[in-house]
Amino acid sequence: MIIGTLGPEGSYSEKAARQWDDKADLKFYDDIFDTVDALMRKEVDCSIVPIENSLEGSITLTLDLLMEHQLKITGEIIVRIKHCLLSKGKIEDIKVIMSHPQGLSQCRKFIKNNFKGIEIRSDLSTSHAAKLASESKEIAAIASGESARMYGLKILDENIQDVKENFTRFIVIGKTTPALTSNDKTSIIVYLEKNRPGALYEILGEFASRNIDLTKIESRPSKKALGDYVFYIDIKGHIEDKPIKETLSKIKSKVGMLKILGSYPAAK
Amino acid sequence: MIIGTLGPEGSYSEKAARQWDDKADLKFYDDIFDTVDALMRKEVDCSIVPIENSLEGSITLTLDLLMEHQLKITGEIIVRIKHCLLSKGKIEDIKVIMSHPQGLSQCRKFIKNNFKGIEIRSDLSTSHAAKLASESKEIAAIASGESARMYGLKILDENIQDVKENFTRFIVIGKTTPALTSNDKTSIIVYLEKNRPGALYEILGEFASRNIDLTKIESRPSKKALGDYVFYIDIKGHIEDKPIKETLSKIKSKVGMLKILGSYPAAK
Repeated sequence: MIIGTLGPEGSYSEKAARQWDDKADLKFYDDIFDTVDALMRKEVDCSIVPIENSLEGSITLTLDLLMEHQLKITGEIIVRIKHCLLSKGKIEDIKVIMSHPQGLSQCRKFIKNNFKGIEIRSDLSTSHAAKLASESKEIAAIASGESARMYGLKILDENIQDVKENFTRFIVIGKTTPALTSNDKTSIIVYLEKNRPGALYEILGEFASRNIDLTKIESRPSKKALGDYVFYIDIKGHIEDKPIKETLSKIKSKVGMLKILGSYPAAK
Repeated sequence: MIIGTLGPEGSYSEKAARQWDDKADLKFYDDIFDTVDALMRKEVDCSIVPIENSLEGSITLTLDLLMEHQLKITGEIIVRIKHCLLSKGKIEDIKVIMSHPQGLSQCRKFIKNNFKGIEIRSDLSTSHAAKLASESKEIAAIASGESARMYGLKILDENIQDVKENFTRFIVIGKTTPALTSNDKTSIIVYLEKNRPGALYEILGEFASRNIDLTKIESRPSKKALGDYVFYIDIKGHIEDKPIKETLSKIKSKVGMLKILGSYPAAK
């Protein structure tokens, strides 16, 4: 089993992959795009990428890739995120703070309160930022404690995200649909006809009338026009459940586009 | 009239502010946080900040500030975005590409296809990135054509965003509620009770049953737990319209929290 994920070592994505399958071989990629591409080029058996953080919200690139390509979600993993401020030097030496944009956003207040006016650089991953921090005392990275050990950095501060309870949900993208369990989720993307008032209400009604529980609904730009959206919807249940099958076929007849991203066991 | 907006000069925010009121005095701030803070400290009469882009989606910091503070949306402005690649030097000299994170995301494919592996730095604004690019041949900025003129840079490439049709919606944050016109919008934030299936459907039903048109619905993390959301909803009409007043008071009794952000004339 080869899993592709965001590297280098020490990333939260690595943590997610180990949590998913601690015996698998991991292959690390530079960014989410390459990680997903590796699966499409069959370099890996599945890929694990972040999709949503409890403070910052969706990882928009992941959502966009799910829209653009034929990908199947086969699982999800929830990882607790504890960001640390890492550096080779001391606090006074720091001239640049680097991290993945999500890391920077999740620690926005921390940076603003402690390092107002400092140079901020976004990097491809938190662990890559840690790797770069190991090359200069002037660079501090916002990354995991594991990254500190991995790249020989000091932990100058820990649990620095703006809200202590901080979780990221990762998805497993693979080839097969997992069999039905007692606790599944199904993810879909729906594009409604533009300018039809009440259309979203009607769609949600199909779920509500069958007591199907929505766990998430999120709008993203359709990229066609400002104010035109697609909806990413997660529901409880498996595509093989009769009510869900029924609902989705009903919805299909009412919308501009319905894309089924997959059914998979829900993370606890 | 003093308007606070994101600077320095040459920013898309400046363009929005001039579009809003070309006689006003502008005061420029480093970031969205400071721009909003200026209004709260009464340094300016209103502030203009970006809220949504047609390719990348919401400016999450703006949404979060609307949630955290007592702010009133008093208007909206739509600006066409045409990103340019700007530098003092030639394409071959470029070692770093800088922009606001939104600029970087909107040109993700352009960067990937033309500058794979190059160092990417996020900056506080596109125009600030342009200003920095004027200091070194090795830095290119993704910013507006106006920024090129402002900071003496060459336009190496133009209209480089991944989708040509690219618009950003800005909001005006002020103190007073504008009077009713024939084409208004009302923005609200709703927090449902957690784990109550069908709750969102019920809320949307209140609008649908009164033929109130939703122009936007977007979920953001409540920051309390993963999978717990608040909803940002825009509807057509003014809070002084009877059906809207009625609906909102009905909704208020059904939800954990209802925050009315304001009624204002819709941009054409």
